Amino acid sequence: MTRVAMEGKVLNENEKAAGELRAEFARHGVFVVNLIGSPGCGKTALLERTLQSYDPGRRVAVLTGDIQTDADAERLGRYGFPARQITTAGACHLDARMVRKALEGWDLAKLDVLFIENVGNLVCPTSYDLGEAHKIVLLSVTEGEEKPLKYPGIFFKASLMVMTKVDLLPYVPFKADLAEQNARQIHPEIEVVRVSVTTGAGMDRWLGWLDQSSITGLISS
Amino acid sequence: MTRVAMEGKVLNENEKAAGELRAEFARHGVFVVNLIGSPGCGKTALLERTLQSYDPGRRVAVLTGDIQTDADAERLGRYGFPARQITTAGACHLDARMVRKALEGWDLAKLDVLFIENVGNLVCPTSYDLGEAHKIVLLSVTEGEEKPLKYPGIFFKASLMVMTKVDLLPYVPFKADLAEQNARQIHPEIEVVRVSVTTGAGMDRWLGWLDQSSITGLISS
Repeated sequence: MTRVAMEGKVLNENEKAAGELRAEFARHGVFVVNLIGSPGCGKTALLERTLQSYDPGRRVAVLTGDIQTDADAERLGRYGFPARQITTAGACHLDARMVRKALEGWDLAKLDVLFIENVGNLVCPTSYDLGEAHKIVLLSVTEGEEKPLKYPGIFFKASLMVMTKVDLLPYVPFKADLAEQNARQIHPEIEVVRVSVTTGAGMDRWLGWLDQSSITGLISS
Repeated sequence: MTRVAMEGKVLNENEKAAGELRAEFARHGVFVVNLIGSPGCGKTALLERTLQSYDPGRRVAVLTGDIQTDADAERLGRYGFPARQITTAGACHLDARMVRKALEGWDLAKLDVLFIENVGNLVCPTSYDLGEAHKIVLLSVTEGEEKPLKYPGIFFKASLMVMTKVDLLPYVPFKADLAEQNARQIHPEIEVVRVSVTTGAGMDRWLGWLDQSSITGLISS
């Protein structure tokens, strides 16, 4: 078997597992988002601020992927919502089977929203469906506005781009409008919110997008 | 063949091609470094500032990897030194065969230093030897000081960590000393330089490391 054929087989198996997960999420009415971005783009920080803003009664949970360490689950577990680490032991992305295994013992009927934080990587996680309703790509203003053109795969597949760390805009040469334009060149319908977890700017729009999309998702499913 | 066996085979083939490249670099006295870091950590900017500082007579060249676009080769080509793009068409890392192909037509006897800028990714490029003398990992101060613990592979293999964007330290919660400590926890002998291409801080140490390592490399080879 060639390498390409082998990769195709792995992806096909993942598609199957992801399809089963998606059906299960739909059966229990769980809205699932898959957060993808570079190491250090602010995925965990965005989730922390999000959980912090939620009432204790919200039925949300988090899975967070890393190659090593369970530091993120520890950070995310402080807010009173279930949080579990998936340690990939070298793999550069999450796959659907890792997610299924990490969900063992959780009663999906008791969840409304599941956040999945992928391994920090703009490339490999793009190809692995996790049964999510939406992929969300994070791009921090410290990274450069050309990234959507250089890593088009994830910008094409993501429903939403969260531009993070906008409080740093005065100190970096990043052109925010051009970054949006580049993202829309790859994916004209992509939505964009600009956020700073430091100042709280844009958090209302991000939280609003989540609420709105989860309602739309449940109606359409 | 299992997936793991297949990956092993791919890596073995790469090792062979990388060994041939390394022998060829040694024969011609070319000092080769492989720059690895997240998207947006400042690889291209560091190389731009480096080339800018060199006399026109320096015998240096650059290969720069991206999934799409040849924007980086264009940026790097402005300084009068040979610069070529390797577009991986989806692959999340460079491999030795891509490097060999990109070198076609270049006379290695006319080069002293070759910079290879890898695809923006802290994970996958780590496993692919390109025949380089040193891997160099870049970590920007906007990424978080825990990254060496979360992505230990590259910090273990890199001879040098370049901490980039230190001009932003006043505006981010990054603890620079802790980041160095974390890197040394993974790799006690790793060298560290702190650089800002915006202010020029630390550039002398980075350029000094390159000059010193290329001399040491040639004596030992």
